[in-house]
Amino acid sequence: MEKRLNTKTISELSPLLKNKEVSPVELVDDVLEQIETLNNKLNAYIEVTAEKARKQAELAESEIRSGNYRGPLHGIPIAIKDILYVANETTTMGSKIHRNFRPTYSATVIEKLTEAGAVFPGKTNLHEYAWGATNNNPHFGPARNPWDPERIPGGSSGGSGVATAAHMTIASLGTDTGGSIRIPSSFCGIVGLKPTYGLVSKYGCFPLAWSLDHIGPMAKTARDAAYILEAMAGYDPKDPTSTDAPATSYSTQFMESVKGVKIGIEPYFFDHVDEGVERAVKQAIASLEREGAVVETVRIPTLQYAQYAEMITILSEASAIHHNHLVEREEDFGDDVRFLLKLGELPSAVDYLEAQQIRLKLDHEFMEIFNKVDVLITPTIPFLPPKIGQDTVWINGEEVNFLDHIIRFTGPFNLTGLPVVTVPCGFVQGLPVGMQIIGPAFGEGTILNVADVFETLHPELKYPPAVLRK
Amino acid sequence: MEKRLNTKTISELSPLLKNKEVSPVELVDDVLEQIETLNNKLNAYIEVTAEKARKQAELAESEIRSGNYRGPLHGIPIAIKDILYVANETTTMGSKIHRNFRPTYSATVIEKLTEAGAVFPGKTNLHEYAWGATNNNPHFGPARNPWDPERIPGGSSGGSGVATAAHMTIASLGTDTGGSIRIPSSFCGIVGLKPTYGLVSKYGCFPLAWSLDHIGPMAKTARDAAYILEAMAGYDPKDPTSTDAPATSYSTQFMESVKGVKIGIEPYFFDHVDEGVERAVKQAIASLEREGAVVETVRIPTLQYAQYAEMITILSEASAIHHNHLVEREEDFGDDVRFLLKLGELPSAVDYLEAQQIRLKLDHEFMEIFNKVDVLITPTIPFLPPKIGQDTVWINGEEVNFLDHIIRFTGPFNLTGLPVVTVPCGFVQGLPVGMQIIGPAFGEGTILNVADVFETLHPELKYPPAVLRK
Repeated sequence: MEKRLNTKTISELSPLLKNKEVSPVELVDDVLEQIETLNNKLNAYIEVTAEKARKQAELAESEIRSGNYRGPLHGIPIAIKDILYVANETTTMGSKIHRNFRPTYSATVIEKLTEAGAVFPGKTNLHEYAWGATNNNPHFGPARNPWDPERIPGGSSGGSGVATAAHMTIASLGTDTGGSIRIPSSFCGIVGLKPTYGLVSKYGCFPLAWSLDHIGPMAKTARDAAYILEAMAGYDPKDPTSTDAPATSYSTQFMESVKGVKIGIEPYFFDHVDEGVERAVKQAIASLEREGAVVETVRIPTLQYAQYAEMITILSEASAIHHNHLVEREEDFGDDVRFLLKLGELPSAVDYLEAQQIRLKLDHEFMEIFNKVDVLITPTIPFLPPKIGQDTVWINGEEVNFLDHIIRFTGPFNLTGLPVVTVPCGFVQGLPVGMQIIGPAFGEGTILNVADVFETLHPELKYPPAVLRK
Repeated sequence: MEKRLNTKTISELSPLLKNKEVSPVELVDDVLEQIETLNNKLNAYIEVTAEKARKQAELAESEIRSGNYRGPLHGIPIAIKDILYVANETTTMGSKIHRNFRPTYSATVIEKLTEAGAVFPGKTNLHEYAWGATNNNPHFGPARNPWDPERIPGGSSGGSGVATAAHMTIASLGTDTGGSIRIPSSFCGIVGLKPTYGLVSKYGCFPLAWSLDHIGPMAKTARDAAYILEAMAGYDPKDPTSTDAPATSYSTQFMESVKGVKIGIEPYFFDHVDEGVERAVKQAIASLEREGAVVETVRIPTLQYAQYAEMITILSEASAIHHNHLVEREEDFGDDVRFLLKLGELPSAVDYLEAQQIRLKLDHEFMEIFNKVDVLITPTIPFLPPKIGQDTVWINGEEVNFLDHIIRFTGPFNLTGLPVVTVPCGFVQGLPVGMQIIGPAFGEGTILNVADVFETLHPELKYPPAVLRK
């Protein structure tokens, strides 16, 4: 039997859709069937909008038939993290407080993907307000890792990671404030892109922490991420943090070579890392070196303060946003979010401002580094996905606090707003390991190219996850 | 006897200097003589750099003689607020802690004015670190108002206001975080310009509060302010808050007309204002109306929260900057600054972030207003200059706290970064009253034009202050 349509990539599907060899309706039906089969087990979706998705697919079908092909996302199912507003649809944010919230307008990214002809199969599970510390959403239950359903898929965009990895969508949207796109992408074995701060409008995305928030694609390949980014990027006057960067076609920038590409390695990112993870990332770097990339050690001294700055900033900004709800409806938050929100009331303005000074220093140091190298490569997470409910993880025989380590390598790029793509780079104990490829501001083309070359070199890192092989 | 050179404006002097009718050396000598006569009485200067100024004047003289005229500031004495770094010269910041501080580099504005051929007669008195609440600098003594030496000249750029008003310089530089250029300009009866945030580099200026700080000119006329602004403005990569705005010649934009100019009046700025001050500003607006300007009432609802946002922001940022000194050398601060710095340790990060949200809302409201009107006009300060040492002032028979009211009308434009010029608009009890003319971001040309037309209509508001008439 031929591969089902839901297991394919955007790159594979869009020529078929364009040439009418495949109908968007067949495609969405395969996706909805997969959701039907797996969602009870994996809890990737909070809500499946099957009827709407079929209507969108029918519309796409009729548009394509009548010669109005909109581009590579036309007819492609993309799952929505349930923190992005869709007009007149329930947007829960994984919370009890907003459980019945129906925004009157859609997020700019939703408008843009609609314009590009995408089909929306549903809203994916997430940490409460994207802030829960563990994967145990107390209101909607935990999403489960398709490589081992006893384990967390990572968060906060856990449902998006699971849905994409388990072929319950073709791709999905996530948001990332400390690592929330990259962590579930890494733990689920897919590609996740956190674009440069300001490149993608956040209008209509419920904030977690204004100065750290990003929206980005989670997909099966770097090329798929590029198609989605291209449709979402661009200046939006409705978002005060939006940047008027020149429009770029990311999907046409693939060089299919890393010859001469300078890769920076910072020892900070290889300290206190699970041995298996470290080995996988170092082997991946070596394989890029064999293709002509040049590896260089670099030093960014202020990284040692990054975790402090990230925590002060995210805690403070999240508590500023949720302040009134915490006062009025404290009992309606889950335990973990309530704890974090109370913690976030404690830092002083002086603490916060000192964190912003650290951030500025970090910006400068990274800017200098990117005069010397083209990309940095690091592990995405220093350990393997733990079991659901665990507060601690093991790093080389040492038991450490999950929260102290989960965003240690991802957070610096929320602080600096630099673009990062995480790609699967190996397996340890049957669980996927991801590596981050980081570029200078607006260097999405460069990092996606390196990711694409690496994927092409390592087809063995592709699908399917264990849950699909049984 | 002909008017002495130090009493003239840049507009009057620069043709004379250019045509060699006046030598920069004669000019600086008249300025230094005036300083000699008055500084003991008014305490405008912390340090007079007579020898250096004469050398600069001699250099300017020889350059002009040999045909190398640099432009309208060539040979013009400009006093420096003693918080701007001048390489290898003492920069006290009005403090005990930095009393012997000698920076190794000069502020960008100093570099630029040097390039323009300006002459620097000395460093002017200021509130300690530009932060003292009253005018009573405990380390260098108070500067005194030339209209009544028992009264404060306002701060923090008090010495610059006094020196300019009393012809102890031709113009001067000030800094403005809550009103520190505009307050002494208003109280001393001169013109003070706070440019748009980011238009003038702050590199080499000791910060008071990063997000509110501005450097700008204090001068005898709007045209003089325009000459200085023009020499100082421009992008500076060394200042992370510098804006890459297009270069503009402010001094050539004077239209000599306000016909059709739309003036907005916000009732917030006429509430709780000394009757005499209110009358002077309203008469000034009426005189612009007679010249063809159109007056319209506008509403900016978030103004009611501006004072709160300004205080939280300035207190927090100042305390973040001085945190280590407060820990290590608490006793070396003056009582007022120590109190403010301790107060600034109290706001939480959530308070600070809420203040920034208020600020964002204020930005949007002002942006909308400037779609409807060209400028806003307000009193600069709601009361008359009080006697030195007073903590309270009188507004229409009610005794109120000085600190609660001094920046009530100036602070909103530090929060929003909008350009403001204050110009003398009348006298009450022999003391000068100033009005603010505010424009949209980078609208310096517009506000200076309105100021210039008003000055031309009202030559009776010119010099000299009482201390010069005895």
